[in-house]
Amino acid sequence: MKDRLEKLLRHVSAFDDADLEKILPCFKPKSVRKHTLLLQTGEVCKAFYYVHTGCLRTGFLDRNAEEKTRLVMTDSTIGTALTSFISQQPSFEFISAVEDSELLYISYADFYQLNKACLNWTYFYQRMLEMAYSYQNRRIEQFVTLTAKKRYEMVMRENPLLLQKLSNKELASYLGIREETLSRLKSG
Amino acid sequence: MKDRLEKLLRHVSAFDDADLEKILPCFKPKSVRKHTLLLQTGEVCKAFYYVHTGCLRTGFLDRNAEEKTRLVMTDSTIGTALTSFISQQPSFEFISAVEDSELLYISYADFYQLNKACLNWTYFYQRMLEMAYSYQNRRIEQFVTLTAKKRYEMVMRENPLLLQKLSNKELASYLGIREETLSRLKSG
Repeated sequence: MKDRLEKLLRHVSAFDDADLEKILPCFKPKSVRKHTLLLQTGEVCKAFYYVHTGCLRTGFLDRNAEEKTRLVMTDSTIGTALTSFISQQPSFEFISAVEDSELLYISYADFYQLNKACLNWTYFYQRMLEMAYSYQNRRIEQFVTLTAKKRYEMVMRENPLLLQKLSNKELASYLGIREETLSRLKSG
Repeated sequence: MKDRLEKLLRHVSAFDDADLEKILPCFKPKSVRKHTLLLQTGEVCKAFYYVHTGCLRTGFLDRNAEEKTRLVMTDSTIGTALTSFISQQPSFEFISAVEDSELLYISYADFYQLNKACLNWTYFYQRMLEMAYSYQNRRIEQFVTLTAKKRYEMVMRENPLLLQKLSNKELASYLGIREETLSRLKSG
């Protein structure tokens, strides 16, 4: 299970064997069932996840208590409720399992210990922050520049797995559209 | 002019004198007049700015070619069009001077050279990315959870300088509301 994580880590940063001997033991396995809430709104996020199989999503409730999906993590991706993880303050976002999932996670304490003790981990975290920032900014751009139809077509093209894994409600909230609009787009 | 930048740098990261001897010469001065476009949409962002005096803002055009203000940098703050700066791809955002401004800037090449050569700069950049990510996430949260009135009151409380520096049009686009709504909030 850690082989694929190791491959991912080596892909993002120039880890050597000595680095990985420090890093990999920090990741612990966790199995969760569909709909498990890994983090509730208001809790402090103390874990950073690698999704081995399955799917997680992060989201929040808007003014009308409607769920909005922000990030979807499918196989071989990493992530967490990063704002709370960074600040160690109560989270605005929840993390929930979209389906039964096999995960590896590293604790906040271990994560920041590695940040001090392992330079390649520091570069890895930097790359991750750069990607997280850019991803979030691209999402904002898409919301303000693309129509609902174009956003749907983009997900179909770039991340078709989401159409299989997410319910209509989850996918609509990820796209920032109503379920009825999504149904129309799917059938049209 | 570099004294205040040095103070800011020391505040964010544990730079020693040897670090600062490498870092400070990389920052070059630049004076710009009000409304100068430092970066146009579609250009690659090659500079990272410190605002000594004055005010810069970043923004973009939405589907209706309306300007949206994303970030406002007042005295003694740092920033840039970060997504383009990171990727060195054409920028979705512009950077414009809200008023006559005295700036210091560091080039992309020098910035990333320091990232390799100076560990405290790497930590500084990490902290900056963490703050940029968290700031952006809080903005998204505020847009989806707070009414226009509450967002206006929050800026009045936490960043009243913006009310002095930005035009009504700029401030309205920063708050994500129409100018008429802003006028009503200001008079109410």
